[in-house]
Amino acid sequence: MNVLIVYAHPEPRSFNRAMLDAAVETLGAGGHTVTVSDLYAMRFNPVAGPEDFTARRFPDALQYDREQKHATEHGLYAPDIQAEIDKLLACDLLLLQFPLWWFSVPAILKGWVDRVFVNGLVYGKGRRFDAGGMRGKRALVSITTACYPQMVEADGLLAHLDINLWHLQHGTLAYAGFEVLEPSAAWSIHYTDDASRRAYLRAWRGRLQGIEHETPKPMHVLADFDAGWRLKPGIVPRTAGHRARAGVEAA
Amino acid sequence: MNVLIVYAHPEPRSFNRAMLDAAVETLGAGGHTVTVSDLYAMRFNPVAGPEDFTARRFPDALQYDREQKHATEHGLYAPDIQAEIDKLLACDLLLLQFPLWWFSVPAILKGWVDRVFVNGLVYGKGRRFDAGGMRGKRALVSITTACYPQMVEADGLLAHLDINLWHLQHGTLAYAGFEVLEPSAAWSIHYTDDASRRAYLRAWRGRLQGIEHETPKPMHVLADFDAGWRLKPGIVPRTAGHRARAGVEAA
Repeated sequence: MNVLIVYAHPEPRSFNRAMLDAAVETLGAGGHTVTVSDLYAMRFNPVAGPEDFTARRFPDALQYDREQKHATEHGLYAPDIQAEIDKLLACDLLLLQFPLWWFSVPAILKGWVDRVFVNGLVYGKGRRFDAGGMRGKRALVSITTACYPQMVEADGLLAHLDINLWHLQHGTLAYAGFEVLEPSAAWSIHYTDDASRRAYLRAWRGRLQGIEHETPKPMHVLADFDAGWRLKPGIVPRTAGHRARAGVEAA
Repeated sequence: MNVLIVYAHPEPRSFNRAMLDAAVETLGAGGHTVTVSDLYAMRFNPVAGPEDFTARRFPDALQYDREQKHATEHGLYAPDIQAEIDKLLACDLLLLQFPLWWFSVPAILKGWVDRVFVNGLVYGKGRRFDAGGMRGKRALVSITTACYPQMVEADGLLAHLDINLWHLQHGTLAYAGFEVLEPSAAWSIHYTDDASRRAYLRAWRGRLQGIEHETPKPMHVLADFDAGWRLKPGIVPRTAGHRARAGVEAA
């Protein structure tokens, strides 16, 4: 496989970085080709703006997604965006390695998505879920977090991890067409000792050795929904987000 | 009320900006004091990093949240962060006005949260939910989106809007101690005509005229959870996220 790892941590001596290094080493040893976008080291600009295009279709007022569509058709992306698009297109597996900040990605990684997941290629004109631009590829979220795992169980303080990651795993990665693998989490990493950290790294290496054989998380396909974008009668909700259905309606 | 509006859109001629202007005008006319952080106009830096502190407790390796705790205790924040902290502390209502990008905030606004919601003040040492640093304040999310509303119903293509906004409304705002009001959404804004846009602005102005009388969304309090961070027996799940419980457990 071609693996693109997008890594977003400010500190090269962090445990998050150790997780990155373990992935690079293990996947390389497994015969995969690994590319790393180290966003902090690259000083990646996360702020979507008018300078993202080398020419504009609508110069009077920035309509970012419409401008993306035009830029996709005519090859008008700023070089830093085009370089990331090229890496994205070449990958079979996208691995996001980051510390969970406010139950989402650090801003520098959110900006990588905002600027690189472009209209006309990743999404747009019906490109989403099983018709998404990234269909045929897989994605994997790998976090370090101060949380304890019981906090992100279904009845935990924060609700299920899949609900916390919904905007990312479903609204971003699955929406773009990726098949999404189970997330990896190194828990309460601030409060662990060296032995626990070594155990996390060992488990991570072990998992990555067989990563190409994993079964992705269940996701709905577009055919599960009717013309009004609602689950068709008889379709059983397959995701944590859609399973919130009965409860929300009863409220 | 003192109202802090944090606004994140790159285009001054956008409909999102019209929503901001309507809020500034209506809240001002209602006797409230309004402060706006226009993140794009400020060229706000969203990338959390070592330069965020004027002095460091752990200079060898950046431990961002521990460094925040030290900076809170000793007043060591970079001026751009301290200015936003001061606005946050002074507000009674925090209004986030932004376009929904990948079911979350634009990166520039994520970075505002990453850098301004600091340890030792907003969160940390038991400060969360009803013991959060921002308790006594309210928060309101106002989005524009290309989505149609039926897509973010409980059985919609994307699952319920509350599930998509979970990381923000629960994991960030409620976690910090805010009481969270119902979100405001201007739907499928790319495909609406001027009359619909005027109707959105009219409804938004009408809502804001009585905003101080609204009842916040139901959220759990810390006392609903046991020592292992799980909902106590008999506590009925009150939020969209916790209502996903039964379904997830049955899977």
